[in-house]
Amino acid sequence: MAMNAPRGTQDILPGTSEKWQYIEEVLRDLSRRFHYKEIRTPIFEHTELFQRGVGDSTDIVQKEMYTFEDRGGRSITLRPEGTASVVRSFVQNKLHGLANQPTKLFYFGPMFRYERPQQGRYRQFVQFGIEALGSEDPAVDAEVLSFALKSYQDLGLKSLKLVLNSLGDQESREAHRQALVDHFSPHKEELCEDCQLRLEQNPLRILDCKKDKDHPAMGTAPSILEYLNEYSKTYFDKVKHYLDAMDIDYVIDPNLVRGLDYYNHTAFEIMSEAEGFGAITTLSGGGRYNGLVEDIGGPATPGIGFALSIERLLMALEAEGVELPVENQLDCYVVVMGEKAEVEAVKLVDKLRSEGLQVDKDYLHKKVKAQFKAADRLKAKKVIVLGDREIEEGIGNVKDMASGEQKEISLEDISAELKDTKGE
Amino acid sequence: MAMNAPRGTQDILPGTSEKWQYIEEVLRDLSRRFHYKEIRTPIFEHTELFQRGVGDSTDIVQKEMYTFEDRGGRSITLRPEGTASVVRSFVQNKLHGLANQPTKLFYFGPMFRYERPQQGRYRQFVQFGIEALGSEDPAVDAEVLSFALKSYQDLGLKSLKLVLNSLGDQESREAHRQALVDHFSPHKEELCEDCQLRLEQNPLRILDCKKDKDHPAMGTAPSILEYLNEYSKTYFDKVKHYLDAMDIDYVIDPNLVRGLDYYNHTAFEIMSEAEGFGAITTLSGGGRYNGLVEDIGGPATPGIGFALSIERLLMALEAEGVELPVENQLDCYVVVMGEKAEVEAVKLVDKLRSEGLQVDKDYLHKKVKAQFKAADRLKAKKVIVLGDREIEEGIGNVKDMASGEQKEISLEDISAELKDTKGE
Repeated sequence: MAMNAPRGTQDILPGTSEKWQYIEEVLRDLSRRFHYKEIRTPIFEHTELFQRGVGDSTDIVQKEMYTFEDRGGRSITLRPEGTASVVRSFVQNKLHGLANQPTKLFYFGPMFRYERPQQGRYRQFVQFGIEALGSEDPAVDAEVLSFALKSYQDLGLKSLKLVLNSLGDQESREAHRQALVDHFSPHKEELCEDCQLRLEQNPLRILDCKKDKDHPAMGTAPSILEYLNEYSKTYFDKVKHYLDAMDIDYVIDPNLVRGLDYYNHTAFEIMSEAEGFGAITTLSGGGRYNGLVEDIGGPATPGIGFALSIERLLMALEAEGVELPVENQLDCYVVVMGEKAEVEAVKLVDKLRSEGLQVDKDYLHKKVKAQFKAADRLKAKKVIVLGDREIEEGIGNVKDMASGEQKEISLEDISAELKDTKGE
Repeated sequence: MAMNAPRGTQDILPGTSEKWQYIEEVLRDLSRRFHYKEIRTPIFEHTELFQRGVGDSTDIVQKEMYTFEDRGGRSITLRPEGTASVVRSFVQNKLHGLANQPTKLFYFGPMFRYERPQQGRYRQFVQFGIEALGSEDPAVDAEVLSFALKSYQDLGLKSLKLVLNSLGDQESREAHRQALVDHFSPHKEELCEDCQLRLEQNPLRILDCKKDKDHPAMGTAPSILEYLNEYSKTYFDKVKHYLDAMDIDYVIDPNLVRGLDYYNHTAFEIMSEAEGFGAITTLSGGGRYNGLVEDIGGPATPGIGFALSIERLLMALEAEGVELPVENQLDCYVVVMGEKAEVEAVKLVDKLRSEGLQVDKDYLHKKVKAQFKAADRLKAKKVIVLGDREIEEGIGNVKDMASGEQKEISLEDISAELKDTKGE
């Protein structure tokens, strides 16, 4: 019986993995320029971390986590997102005590949610994200927004929309919450079961409900923007002012609330406007989460971050027809004629690789013609033929596959020759 | 209450993560040169895969796996090693049907074993590994051995020892197995409980036992090398011949059996001979596993691979005092004086980053002196001072932190100036 990968997971195979590598390189370079440093946290954490750090009332914690007991009887959970782990690490390792604040971090890795698999949605998916911990300066919010957009622009995407909102501070949120309760309570019986519960627990998330989105009370719901206090309003104005200064376009959507409980002030999403991208147009999102570090046991520390899914990013690249510049030509293929040449070929291949060239040879004892075919398929730039005569004379027959030109070159000089042509 | 990472896991923080990035880059480049392409398989698999692909009698499967039921009631397991998953993917995705064989793959990622944590041993650890599937040519074995050694040499390690053995083919192994049973059976009662079981299930692994290693019967146990049939002996001779041709040193250890059930023919380990490396000197290992692809449901396909732990590699680098060349200087820090300059600073920082420079600024409204201190701590090569006067005149005051030299440069030209000096 053959075995398959678990449902909702995928293998990334050669031909595709080069795209992932390229995307990683671009995002790492962007992180370098923005001065965010990499953090790598474990794949699993104590379950309690996500109950506290993602929020007990979220779908993620209630329905989607991979939670199990380890052999020591502790409840552990495969991380469903990156922020809670980064904040846990920030607290545990006392990064708030370091001299350079804010602490600016990026991460890259698999996340896990037990959802119904569908196009662009996997149970194991890969997120890239950044977190800036330790500053409540609207300039940091602007920096994170600029970073988020450049994550896509640097890969060649163009049809992007930045959607922005402010959820305000604690005071503003509470005033708005009360207004939402007052607004939706008369319609309670008409709302879905989840929203009836949300009305008690977190009425803001009613605005995010897919089932009730056409209910007439949705369109007339009080907007958070009307409930922002002076501090929150000024904060939001400054964020917008910085975005304007950086020439970054955005639209305000007062209904943008995000799926997680912990956001305040700036909340945002980046959407694809590419035709044919499909129904789900949100590429990524993020926001400010002042208070989360305290919730996880650290000192009062403001924070903001964003995360993107690589799977969605790949869909957007496809929708816009962006070809990533991935190298797929072999520098050199060594063709072997006869058993005596075999040892010399192994030696030569190893030497050329040591000198930085990408080289391969046949390992299936194929005939010479089939070896040339393999060299063609691998798009080899050069082919070196080694036979008994060549070995005796200490030479290799080097063929340039583009021009068809052939030269006999001493085995000693071959690597210099190949590197010369490579650099041309 | 503060939360910690689960026992046996670790956070990789800035200052260390750069080393991981560097190691990854080197290993990816080595893979490129040897023409191995990246495969990424899921973090978890159906439990049965490892029962079949690692071996039911191994410690890994019996004692160390993170196994749990998902919300759909399927038994899944966090991968304890990489080979079984790669082979599963090779079969599921029919990579054996592609034109270019052998299929040469590398992987990089976390693995999970529930063991007692100790120095250099974690419950989540990271492996880099390669697999070559589809060729039974001793030249491939030699290629994998060369690759394994270069994984360390390319990072600057020198005190390395390649230990080699042949476990022979099926016929040779069975002859040897019978000889081992005959040899150890008279001593059965003197062996540890595990070895008594091994005598039935897999007597070869008695040679690997830590408890019984001083039993007198161990020293006189029959060596596999005496039981190699003609084919196996010739195969092993060719591997050694290729190694000699490539000037690769090795020692033969007929007791080297490796912890996994599936090896045959070539088996090897790379050890550190660095002083102060500690008791565990094995850095990595691998071997040939003809038959494994069939066990996992694929067509008869030979294979060979090796895997190394990054955690052990880091220990070896430390033991040999190798410093990895990690860049830690900021290109430029922008010092802001006064609120008016703040918006211009955000704009300038964003622009310089877009042009490839690593730039940062203050986000804590620090005084100018403290901003300069931050620039020093971050080893900024240049500091640009922006104040009200500079903004009015459209200039920035650029200070070279090494020479102390200062210049006033128009905001338009600053990025050209910084890039010039960077390239010098």
